[in-house]
Amino acid sequence: MESQTIQVDHCAVRKEKPKSDQLDFGRIFTDHMFIMDYSDDLGWHDPRIEPYQQLSIDPSAMVFHYGQSVFEGMKAYLTAEDEIQLFRPEKNMQRLNNSNDRLCIPPIDEKFAIQAIKKLVSVDSDWIPEAEGTSLYIRPFIISTEPYIGVAPSLHYKFIVILSPVGAYYKEGINPIKIAVENEFVRTVKGGTGEAKTGGNYAASLKAQEIAGKKGFAQVLWLDGVEKKYIEEVGSMNIFFKINGEVITPELNGSILEGVTRNSVIQLLKYWDVPVVERKIGMEELQQAHHDGLLEEAFGAGTAAVISPISQFTWNNNDSLIKDGKTGAIAKRLYDTLTGIQYGREKDPFDWIVKVEKGSKIAH
Amino acid sequence: MESQTIQVDHCAVRKEKPKSDQLDFGRIFTDHMFIMDYSDDLGWHDPRIEPYQQLSIDPSAMVFHYGQSVFEGMKAYLTAEDEIQLFRPEKNMQRLNNSNDRLCIPPIDEKFAIQAIKKLVSVDSDWIPEAEGTSLYIRPFIISTEPYIGVAPSLHYKFIVILSPVGAYYKEGINPIKIAVENEFVRTVKGGTGEAKTGGNYAASLKAQEIAGKKGFAQVLWLDGVEKKYIEEVGSMNIFFKINGEVITPELNGSILEGVTRNSVIQLLKYWDVPVVERKIGMEELQQAHHDGLLEEAFGAGTAAVISPISQFTWNNNDSLIKDGKTGAIAKRLYDTLTGIQYGREKDPFDWIVKVEKGSKIAH
Ligand SMILES: Cc1ncc(COP(=O)(O)O)c(C=O)c1O
Ligand SMILES: Cc1ncc(COP(=O)(O)O)c(C=O)c1O
Repeated sequence: MESQTIQVDHCAVRKEKPKSDQLDFGRIFTDHMFIMDYSDDLGWHDPRIEPYQQLSIDPSAMVFHYGQSVFEGMKAYLTAEDEIQLFRPEKNMQRLNNSNDRLCIPPIDEKFAIQAIKKLVSVDSDWIPEAEGTSLYIRPFIISTEPYIGVAPSLHYKFIVILSPVGAYYKEGINPIKIAVENEFVRTVKGGTGEAKTGGNYAASLKAQEIAGKKGFAQVLWLDGVEKKYIEEVGSMNIFFKINGEVITPELNGSILEGVTRNSVIQLLKYWDVPVVERKIGMEELQQAHHDGLLEEAFGAGTAAVISPISQFTWNNNDSLIKDGKTGAIAKRLYDTLTGIQYGREKDPFDWIVKVEKGSKIAH
Repeated sequence: MESQTIQVDHCAVRKEKPKSDQLDFGRIFTDHMFIMDYSDDLGWHDPRIEPYQQLSIDPSAMVFHYGQSVFEGMKAYLTAEDEIQLFRPEKNMQRLNNSNDRLCIPPIDEKFAIQAIKKLVSVDSDWIPEAEGTSLYIRPFIISTEPYIGVAPSLHYKFIVILSPVGAYYKEGINPIKIAVENEFVRTVKGGTGEAKTGGNYAASLKAQEIAGKKGFAQVLWLDGVEKKYIEEVGSMNIFFKINGEVITPELNGSILEGVTRNSVIQLLKYWDVPVVERKIGMEELQQAHHDGLLEEAFGAGTAAVISPISQFTWNNNDSLIKDGKTGAIAKRLYDTLTGIQYGREKDPFDWIVKVEKGSKIAH
């Protein structure tokens, strides 16, 4: 597989690029995309970079009916020295294969997939925005394309990578959010697909998000689907609490997605000798810690926002303001260090960064 | 909406039709499909019948990433008098709207959707196979098509109906199946999307099905996601047990799909004065009933197989043969009556049948 060469078909006309300060999230896509096909007889084959274009897919394709799909989310960052950096792409490709396994999708060659992503980013490297906090969002995904409406793993797939220049998540500095603890709906449950990054988990989350959004909450805090007691995740982020000097994050239990940011946060805290523990934590305990004045910080962690401080949580109509609603010191330090490493401003003690070559402008 | 006219664009060349005895399930599609678009500004608009063809969809369309999709499954039957019959289509369209609600998809006009389905079936009426037990499978589905990779309800959708001639489910008479009780994986959970017919539930079910299939089981028996004690469904069917003269089916609890066949079975049993009850039923109770010789029948109920007798269940490596592995009297009577009504051989005391006019061959 690694020896397969990636054909590049450059687009004839390049699109106009958006201004760095006018960037939204996920609405603008670059000039090219990567595609590779799978069939049961040929395996993964025909890897290629093509002009970004509409897909032609049969209406009976399984992805439209039975949701057999997985995806990843990562970013390419431009440093002040005009170098392109990826952040731990091997973790994303590992997770993609874990998701594949849960969804009965054939595994991809992780090394080759990183090569393909690097090549695509290189071809569209002049799309990486330069302004502070902006980046090029990378969306690898796999969809089941066999034209067959029967409930069974598909025999055909497409692995696709698209790129989208995205704006700074925080326009005026890191900004704490209010969250609502969700008591009715659940995102997923042990034995379900929560550990996998698959569409159904996100489809299941829309309703609670919509209801909470109308009440003015930025995100929903998901509880476990079994007892509705234990904290799982916040929106599409993992969650951390600092209680009485110790940082706590829910342990991986089969229904929580293992975030790359979560893993990096834990490593950094250990490196700094800040006590950090992965364990079950219930809403009762959190409420009690807050009541006792021991809840010092709460924050979400994920690729999009990196670190998202939480100023308030609302459970059963009780609002709990965390400290004075300001960003805590640990959240701030993690945000600065992680973005520092990502944008090449800080040293990278864990070898997290993977460099990408700029595509030669002449080739286009 | 109901006043919208459905444009019909007939295909230039009609495909060759398969022989009635060579029909598989869900691999062959007819000459036409119905499509209608939704946008936040226009609502559902532009209903049309087009030649069956590939869809052109942006790679960033939400359905590929966040699984926001719903579907239905129903059939058109040909009677001995060459009449076309649908079975309770209003129930399917109601359920589609319930699914829409859970998935934050805008509702469709149910009456108009039935009209559209009738028109499509009429246009492709010569695709309805004639052989005993065959039918035309109807697959209405809705996919989210907004080109935006953010987790939020889509602003664009397509409602599509495709048709597939399908063979007799039982080639040599109704055939009992062996099922495996699933202890590890769950299909869904209370607070999740189990009540909705959405792709993610089916994606989540593939892994357990695959493992059970390799061990020679036809279907998986799903337990509740909370306690893993109570029986929910079998594969893509609702389940019924006859214990000591009474028919029992798991009550609708928020994670079970309400089947049209399930509803019809309950109505028929009541009409026949056979005791029937919807209630929680656990595996312990089932095993005990079997042990005591009181488990008289078990069967699944769904559109595809109508009634699927269960000859054996395996739980924690214990095989329990139900009676002598033969089809029970109630299962047989239900199968004969339901298919009798569907194919117009029996009278229809509940007004379940909706007739469809044959498309005039001249018009093509
Ligand atoms: C459900 C969920 N949890 C957690 C995360 C955080 O993961 P990561 O840090 O890899 O972005 C994400 C986002 O990717 C997510 O979708
Ligand atoms: C999960 C599930 N349960 C039950 C059913 C049975 O429903 P119906 O009788 O409407 O076909 C189906 C099939 O449609 C299903 O997918």
